[in-house]
Amino acid sequence: MQENPDNSASADLLPADFIVEAPWLISVAAGTATIEDAAIAITGTTIAGVGTRKEINSRFSARRTQILQSHVLLPGLVNAHGHAAMTLFRGYAEDTNLQTWLNEAIWPLEAKWVDDSFVRDGTRLAIVEMIRSGITCFSDMYYYPEVVAEQAKEAGIRAQVAFPVIQFPNAWSASTEEGFHKGFALHDTYRNDPHIEVAFGPHSVYAITDDDLDKILTYSEELDANIQIHLHENAAELKENHARFGTSGVEHLNQRGLLGPRLQAVHTTQLTAKEIELFAQNNVHVIHCPTSNAKLASGVCPTSELIEAGVNIALGTDGAASNNTLDLLNEARLASLMAKLQRQDATALPARTVLEMATINGARALGLADQIGSLETGKAADMIAIDVSGPEYQPLFDPLAQIIHTSSASAVSHVWAAGDCILDNRVLRSLDLAAILQSVAMWRDRIKR
Amino acid sequence: MQENPDNSASADLLPADFIVEAPWLISVAAGTATIEDAAIAITGTTIAGVGTRKEINSRFSARRTQILQSHVLLPGLVNAHGHAAMTLFRGYAEDTNLQTWLNEAIWPLEAKWVDDSFVRDGTRLAIVEMIRSGITCFSDMYYYPEVVAEQAKEAGIRAQVAFPVIQFPNAWSASTEEGFHKGFALHDTYRNDPHIEVAFGPHSVYAITDDDLDKILTYSEELDANIQIHLHENAAELKENHARFGTSGVEHLNQRGLLGPRLQAVHTTQLTAKEIELFAQNNVHVIHCPTSNAKLASGVCPTSELIEAGVNIALGTDGAASNNTLDLLNEARLASLMAKLQRQDATALPARTVLEMATINGARALGLADQIGSLETGKAADMIAIDVSGPEYQPLFDPLAQIIHTSSASAVSHVWAAGDCILDNRVLRSLDLAAILQSVAMWRDRIKR
Repeated sequence: MQENPDNSASADLLPADFIVEAPWLISVAAGTATIEDAAIAITGTTIAGVGTRKEINSRFSARRTQILQSHVLLPGLVNAHGHAAMTLFRGYAEDTNLQTWLNEAIWPLEAKWVDDSFVRDGTRLAIVEMIRSGITCFSDMYYYPEVVAEQAKEAGIRAQVAFPVIQFPNAWSASTEEGFHKGFALHDTYRNDPHIEVAFGPHSVYAITDDDLDKILTYSEELDANIQIHLHENAAELKENHARFGTSGVEHLNQRGLLGPRLQAVHTTQLTAKEIELFAQNNVHVIHCPTSNAKLASGVCPTSELIEAGVNIALGTDGAASNNTLDLLNEARLASLMAKLQRQDATALPARTVLEMATINGARALGLADQIGSLETGKAADMIAIDVSGPEYQPLFDPLAQIIHTSSASAVSHVWAAGDCILDNRVLRSLDLAAILQSVAMWRDRIKR
Repeated sequence: MQENPDNSASADLLPADFIVEAPWLISVAAGTATIEDAAIAITGTTIAGVGTRKEINSRFSARRTQILQSHVLLPGLVNAHGHAAMTLFRGYAEDTNLQTWLNEAIWPLEAKWVDDSFVRDGTRLAIVEMIRSGITCFSDMYYYPEVVAEQAKEAGIRAQVAFPVIQFPNAWSASTEEGFHKGFALHDTYRNDPHIEVAFGPHSVYAITDDDLDKILTYSEELDANIQIHLHENAAELKENHARFGTSGVEHLNQRGLLGPRLQAVHTTQLTAKEIELFAQNNVHVIHCPTSNAKLASGVCPTSELIEAGVNIALGTDGAASNNTLDLLNEARLASLMAKLQRQDATALPARTVLEMATINGARALGLADQIGSLETGKAADMIAIDVSGPEYQPLFDPLAQIIHTSSASAVSHVWAAGDCILDNRVLRSLDLAAILQSVAMWRDRIKR
């Protein structure tokens, strides 16, 4: 970091708090390419300017300049679907199919262990992992969403907290009524908070009554709140939907009027052409979780077909219990590889497309595209730096492709959230890593039989 | 590292050069589970004993003991297929199909740039990356195989060098005759070397005459040398084979008598049930390269079906030009995920199976299973340690699954090759990283137009 004491001489220049310079910057703004010899100026919590080093230094005078010698600057990643606290079940139930995994492992484990302290410690661990892999905004769907929101605030990152609406009684809510009640209170608490969005989190069409679906529709319009739901996760779910509704989950939501720009449909590994068209017509967002869908043998979301229809696709890690990491760049790579295989076309989902899915498309899905998702003047300074000096990146012909196709999570060196440096050369600034790991060790000993 | 000066007091104990202790050891030996509170004793280049810390310390007296506090010990990984020097083309031609990639990018690039210095510098870079990601033995198929063998020797790791037998003239050989001639000389040079195996490397059935295939069969039996060939890489190759031979590549090799335990068939994304049976009957080895096959949209090797038939499957990274990294643990994860999707069964290819593919099965494919591939008494001390203290591994219920399903290449802390520590807490001991990166920077500037 260089201090720039002499900014008296720069009267014509705009003031900035700091400038970061790096050999490459990928803003992900529409129509832009990788900027070489780049810089970005930050004032307060927002981006004041993005361009070449020369451009930025001719327009801004900053109190500090940080020069990164071998890094690529990118927007902070947006993890559009997960269950942060479930990180405490990471690796507990391996190599099992979705229904067995839920019925025989996850749900009994949750019944036994989930309380507010579980959610606090598990979410903290997840946030640590997410920051270290470049995620500055995450969506969460889990019990005790008020605890999740607090943890995100404490860490200094952004979150969409989708509170559970699920018909079976659980540690957090004895009924859907109680869920709604607590969810509304939560929404009220964060009504004016720029970092926390509160959304409806109906688990799935099979775990909610039609009556409650109708309520969600009404309330979501009243509160202008998003809805995130697991939908068509695998063939077994689809079969269950048909047995129950006489039609698919997508058609059922359509019949009840829920398909719309506030809906975030997670997984959707099984979609007909007509359902894809319904998503497009209604501006539904799709959240693709390739690793979880593969690991649970659920299927592959038809990303190329959705993109052709004009549907916005974001990426999610899902919970660490079915992944087993919260590494969104890895999801981006897998999304690209799977699409190429699925279409038998190596040009499908190129690196640029999957990077957009991990950034601006995620912001769009969460209704935050005017604030985050790309490095553009006026947007929040949510930004990451990836150090590409390692031998596994050389010779660096194409920084964008290489970031996607190398395991880059461990190369994320810096993370800024709303202008605040919360990961500084791999050191966490907003959280106490040692204390968090200690709490996790305690949970390991408790959970392990 | 602790020095143990007082080994006069241990007259009943067997002497060992050093002992490594770690909380976990996965030997990959048949029928063994993860050993907790483990240790391994090394004498000279070989493993003297493997067991719990208590067992090993009650049997051996070592001059040094290295205590790793948060690590898993594993056999060195075996990368059974690659083109090391092509690392210099990493990221040069992205998101293109196999035939375009070869005809319009790779082959013209090779014609322009490949010479002995290209192969030296590219192979060095690849070896650096492979050691850092835990690979202690690799198979290579490229021009100037004598240079590749020298580089492997210098780095202290093991290699199978498959010399090219390809019918079009190239920088290394004007004709297949010259290729054979140089290959025989190379075989002769390393006849008694325990670290270098020289094999035949016919590129593919479509790039060689039947006459040369027949010669390879005869010579491979005479020299007891292996044969590695790209086979049924994608549907287009299969079509070409049918046009040329009136049958598939596998059937063609079968008709000419080449299917046998010396044959290593790389890729095989397209196989009929009969061809799988032919592989099983003839003990052919399959080398699965999941990332490359996905990235080039070639297809997916039917691993579950091959395993059920009893065929040995190893893993390869292929070259970095179609991957873009040399990270075998990542290939293991992708092999598991793809098999689960392909079979619509989350129990397919569990973590243990893909770890075997990355270690003992690779050793078996290269004919080295009596020497490497598992941590067993009498085998070479080719071993790695992975540091699982990072938050992305916690809480650690299942070290094996977590190593496979986390991007673990950057967590490889130590690598021993034949008892020699060549990566010591991420520091390369046998190679000059700075000098290698400098040579690579020069190649980047030359190749980049």
